[in-house]
Amino acid sequence: MIRSAILGASGYVGGELLRLLSRHPGIRATRLFGDSKAGQRLGSVHPHIGGVTAALEVARFKPEALDGIDLVFAALPHGESQRWAETILASGARLVDLGADFRLHDPQVYATWYGEAHQAPQLLDQFVYGIPELHREAIRSARAVAAAGCYPTATILALKPLVDAGLVDPVSLIVDAASGVSGAGRAVKEGTAFNTVDGSFAAYGLLNHRHTAEMEQALGGTVLFTPHLAPMTRGILATCYATATRAMAADEPLQALRAAYAAEPFVRVSDDPPATKWVSGSNGAVVTARYDPRTGRVLALGAIDNLGKGAAGQMIQCANLMLGLDETAGLTAEGVFP
Amino acid sequence: MIRSAILGASGYVGGELLRLLSRHPGIRATRLFGDSKAGQRLGSVHPHIGGVTAALEVARFKPEALDGIDLVFAALPHGESQRWAETILASGARLVDLGADFRLHDPQVYATWYGEAHQAPQLLDQFVYGIPELHREAIRSARAVAAAGCYPTATILALKPLVDAGLVDPVSLIVDAASGVSGAGRAVKEGTAFNTVDGSFAAYGLLNHRHTAEMEQALGGTVLFTPHLAPMTRGILATCYATATRAMAADEPLQALRAAYAAEPFVRVSDDPPATKWVSGSNGAVVTARYDPRTGRVLALGAIDNLGKGAAGQMIQCANLMLGLDETAGLTAEGVFP
Amino acid sequence: MIRSAILGASGYVGGELLRLLSRHPGIRATRLFGDSKAGQRLGSVHPHIGGVTAALEVARFKPEALDGIDLVFAALPHGESQRWAETILASGARLVDLGADFRLHDPQVYATWYGEAHQAPQLLDQFVYGIPELHREAIRSARAVAAAGCYPTATILALKPLVDAGLVDPVSLIVDAASGVSGAGRAVKEGTAFNTVDGSFAAYGLLNHRHTAEMEQALGGTVLFTPHLAPMTRGILATCYATATRAMAADEPLQALRAAYAAEPFVRVSDDPPATKWVSGSNGAVVTARYDPRTGRVLALGAIDNLGKGAAGQMIQCANLMLGLDETAGLTAEGVFP
Amino acid sequence: MIRSAILGASGYVGGELLRLLSRHPGIRATRLFGDSKAGQRLGSVHPHIGGVTAALEVARFKPEALDGIDLVFAALPHGESQRWAETILASGARLVDLGADFRLHDPQVYATWYGEAHQAPQLLDQFVYGIPELHREAIRSARAVAAAGCYPTATILALKPLVDAGLVDPVSLIVDAASGVSGAGRAVKEGTAFNTVDGSFAAYGLLNHRHTAEMEQALGGTVLFTPHLAPMTRGILATCYATATRAMAADEPLQALRAAYAAEPFVRVSDDPPATKWVSGSNGAVVTARYDPRTGRVLALGAIDNLGKGAAGQMIQCANLMLGLDETAGLTAEGVFP
Repeated sequence: MIRSAILGASGYVGGELLRLLSRHPGIRATRLFGDSKAGQRLGSVHPHIGGVTAALEVARFKPEALDGIDLVFAALPHGESQRWAETILASGARLVDLGADFRLHDPQVYATWYGEAHQAPQLLDQFVYGIPELHREAIRSARAVAAAGCYPTATILALKPLVDAGLVDPVSLIVDAASGVSGAGRAVKEGTAFNTVDGSFAAYGLLNHRHTAEMEQALGGTVLFTPHLAPMTRGILATCYATATRAMAADEPLQALRAAYAAEPFVRVSDDPPATKWVSGSNGAVVTARYDPRTGRVLALGAIDNLGKGAAGQMIQCANLMLGLDETAGLTAEGVFP
Repeated sequence: MIRSAILGASGYVGGELLRLLSRHPGIRATRLFGDSKAGQRLGSVHPHIGGVTAALEVARFKPEALDGIDLVFAALPHGESQRWAETILASGARLVDLGADFRLHDPQVYATWYGEAHQAPQLLDQFVYGIPELHREAIRSARAVAAAGCYPTATILALKPLVDAGLVDPVSLIVDAASGVSGAGRAVKEGTAFNTVDGSFAAYGLLNHRHTAEMEQALGGTVLFTPHLAPMTRGILATCYATATRAMAADEPLQALRAAYAAEPFVRVSDDPPATKWVSGSNGAVVTARYDPRTGRVLALGAIDNLGKGAAGQMIQCANLMLGLDETAGLTAEGVFP
Repeated sequence: MIRSAILGASGYVGGELLRLLSRHPGIRATRLFGDSKAGQRLGSVHPHIGGVTAALEVARFKPEALDGIDLVFAALPHGESQRWAETILASGARLVDLGADFRLHDPQVYATWYGEAHQAPQLLDQFVYGIPELHREAIRSARAVAAAGCYPTATILALKPLVDAGLVDPVSLIVDAASGVSGAGRAVKEGTAFNTVDGSFAAYGLLNHRHTAEMEQALGGTVLFTPHLAPMTRGILATCYATATRAMAADEPLQALRAAYAAEPFVRVSDDPPATKWVSGSNGAVVTARYDPRTGRVLALGAIDNLGKGAAGQMIQCANLMLGLDETAGLTAEGVFP
Repeated sequence: MIRSAILGASGYVGGELLRLLSRHPGIRATRLFGDSKAGQRLGSVHPHIGGVTAALEVARFKPEALDGIDLVFAALPHGESQRWAETILASGARLVDLGADFRLHDPQVYATWYGEAHQAPQLLDQFVYGIPELHREAIRSARAVAAAGCYPTATILALKPLVDAGLVDPVSLIVDAASGVSGAGRAVKEGTAFNTVDGSFAAYGLLNHRHTAEMEQALGGTVLFTPHLAPMTRGILATCYATATRAMAADEPLQALRAAYAAEPFVRVSDDPPATKWVSGSNGAVVTARYDPRTGRVLALGAIDNLGKGAAGQMIQCANLMLGLDETAGLTAEGVFP
């Protein structure tokens, strides 16, 4: 069994990693770190975790506690990964990081979108961008992976094959996406209180959401991105608009998706527009696309669970590849429906 | 007291009209028609209606039952208004129709989007398009109003002042909107069952939703419109994208909205992106907009309650104008929050 | 116009009072106090409030600011009313208090359930318990009213006529109730975060919820009360069990409710079990009851909106009585449905 | 691999069985029957099922199609199991039935609660009541299991150890329970439409819900049971009240639960009241209890997922026992949280 440590074990992604690893045949969650709830028993932090795991204690992170650890999953507040990555990699452990810290290859782009200089630019080229469907071979041989953000994963899975096939103009992209509330993390605030969100739908982060940079890097273009908060706990739907490069058959974009994902275990191409609940609680993704002859645009949609394929599921998929395990070990593509 | 009849009294819009008229100082709901639940007591059809009104019976519509009626509110299945409009107008009653039947001025455009010839084209020029903020004076003197659809109302309120001010290119419009489930009407189907919708978000009606034609007529351009179903009962948020006609200050679109709606009792211009619950249960609308220098686009948002400003509220606002009553009688702009 | 002040204007009850008073024909919200958000504009505190009211500023409470105020609505954190009641009453204003501070007549019972001595026992006999259906005449002539709690209102409306008619044994009462999340107030905490509550149902406050004392006082018996949190914003349903005092017809409890509430404008007696949404956003209540010959028990149910008949609506109903206004002014019994 | 057939494959329980079996190491879903959607591809019936399974076709049930089938999971409309059980058992396959048809040992009790004579009383003694925590050994050797209903499972797990320990009077039981909407099945109706249920809480089936008989049979007493519909898709919480047989320590009921479930893989005993989401999507159950010295009553609570431990999960747990597999194969106790 691979021995893994989770940094950020008390957040939602940490809880999802624990749930998924509890039935993973090859990776065990051996050490749990989380500063804000250090000293608490796991059972009081994550009420869905029972059994012997519930008795484990969340500890404050110390580098020496990585002794004997083969793999680190990091789901930390922004900026923390830059602080600890060198130490983790020096320990000999592989690293799957969910932070935005090492996703952008260019530290200048990082500085532009995050408003501060990158603290560990020398490590950037050790990280592979963690969407296995795009970078499977590089991930297999990587020591460190920067797992993609939730919005970018849904968006890139829907658009990348269309860009690659030359069907859409990459400088024309508009991404309008809705997320479940767990995407905002576990910190309590009025904006994510039940009474605020229930029965309501709103946009936020207009024009400048940081995930824009990741989308532009992966798609090689310009993106106007508007995230929305939907009254649901999990799920992301990205509805993407692009100017077509030429007239084409209505289903040509769909065929491009089918060709790209024919052999993928977690990406399904659907004729119909997907609902996020189809993949809720799973590592699955569903995409579709079509050409609109009336406006000359291509419409593409991608649905995932932000905590699954958008976070913990994708981290485990990347880890499976890095460790030479079956890529699907411990994961499913079937959502908890209804 | 004005004596009104409601055609389609057993649907959700009918129920909302009854709720609003129960406290309206000048209009009374006198006769209630609804074929599918004809013969049932109102209290068994609309569980929120109590008191003496609950004892009223829903009747099958007969033209002669309009004797003594001053005003007809029609919220009928598609196509039914074309069938009855001539009879209703001949009775001498004013008509506020929520159907799509008389919203499009051009019967050819109607035929294109609805796939059938219009049955009463000779009546089209008697109808004024029912958004009071756009056509207040025409509504005042109209005998018949075609109240706008829910998606178009949210969209047009957000975009029209920007088009009129020349800030955006009207052939570049993309409208990405989410609606509460009540927008799909009261007929039961698996797509609107609780288990299907709860915890899920999905697009539908890709590329060809019929409300597109209404938006294009009002805005004088080309619209690519994608509706979504959000897991909430009420509310519409329209997130609208347009190519700016020139570089401008980031808040120039916002100022255009402020100028347009300064004196409006039901439209609020907000610096922040609105949440649909701000206006849930009311006739209010909230809009905002901004220019994105990075992509050269304008982003505009409009939030309403699809059953309020998107249906029953707007119908009553139109009726108030037609009848010379205070435009705000029986209506509020404050949502039921939280 | 009556000039009223709201203490606790920035909480959910404060927001609901503002919404209801915005269309009240006889009472105006003149001064707004709220310590936690003092200095903020109302529009930023309550996003559903627009127009000129949104520009008002929430102020820190000072007794001298009650000059010229006819009526005080207080919706304060527990204990605060004991601190300010004397000052408020000395100002000459009438007081409608929603705190638990003056609901229990016996300071010993208060000490038992609240774990501390009452700070103003000398004022207790000036307060009338604020359920108009029980104490209408006393409220009319009162200077101060202690509006009932949300759970007690739903429970007492369902059970009191049955106790009064001698149909049930008052020492046998079990009350199992579910509340929407707004009942927990506006303070942000993990237990009321969207992600915690959505898709979940749980009991809390087992055996010792403080509202038990109020129910026992009003019903003259012993109550075992279990509150639950339901994944909805508004609404309370109290499902009440009592041992019948004798065999009776199955509908005898229902007839007792019909007799008690025949003339009530806000209480509806229903054959069918009520759903909370029937009265959501309103001051309505719906009750039903029946006798179970198999177990010898009576089952009684009461549904209200915890912010309506369970808080702000009931406060205004009490104020209308105290001020000699129409008891229903500014209030409705029709819920916002669906 | 065990070859199983699912009767009722197109319902929610069928879909959950398919999801769980997709990762079961020892049982495969080989044949799928479902009359209402016969002829449809599985992917169009269950949108969460992808991959090769999605291409399977749902067939109309024919007895000869059971050739080579080792095990039948039946999740059929009420009454259908009585019709087919003899045929299924004659085929040599083992049977796990979720219908109520074979849960009650006494055909007279069946006739009383279901209002019709039992059609296959001669088979009743071949069925073991399917709650493994109560009847593990009998299930191991059974040819047929009648898996318990969802409400009874939550209730019996919470109360049975207290009855067995003599702590509560079994003729005094009151069960007040709330269920997610999936418990009402997949047939579309207005009562389970999103708009009806969202933001609402209601009781139903007052005094005479059929699950009462099952509870009484398992607990050996008299139960007054009130089910409620909560605005969530999955989950059942049973809040149970019983008269204590004597004064006891407040935690004596809790200790009885701990003793009973110490070695159970799926039942967790909690100090705190459980929330249904702790076990959503899993086969877990969480129970708690305490004694109330003030009223002399015991309060016990049980939380499950109605589609998990209340249906498909429990069916698989029973099948694992019948087939000599690891009891936990293909199942988890960790809920999908948040």
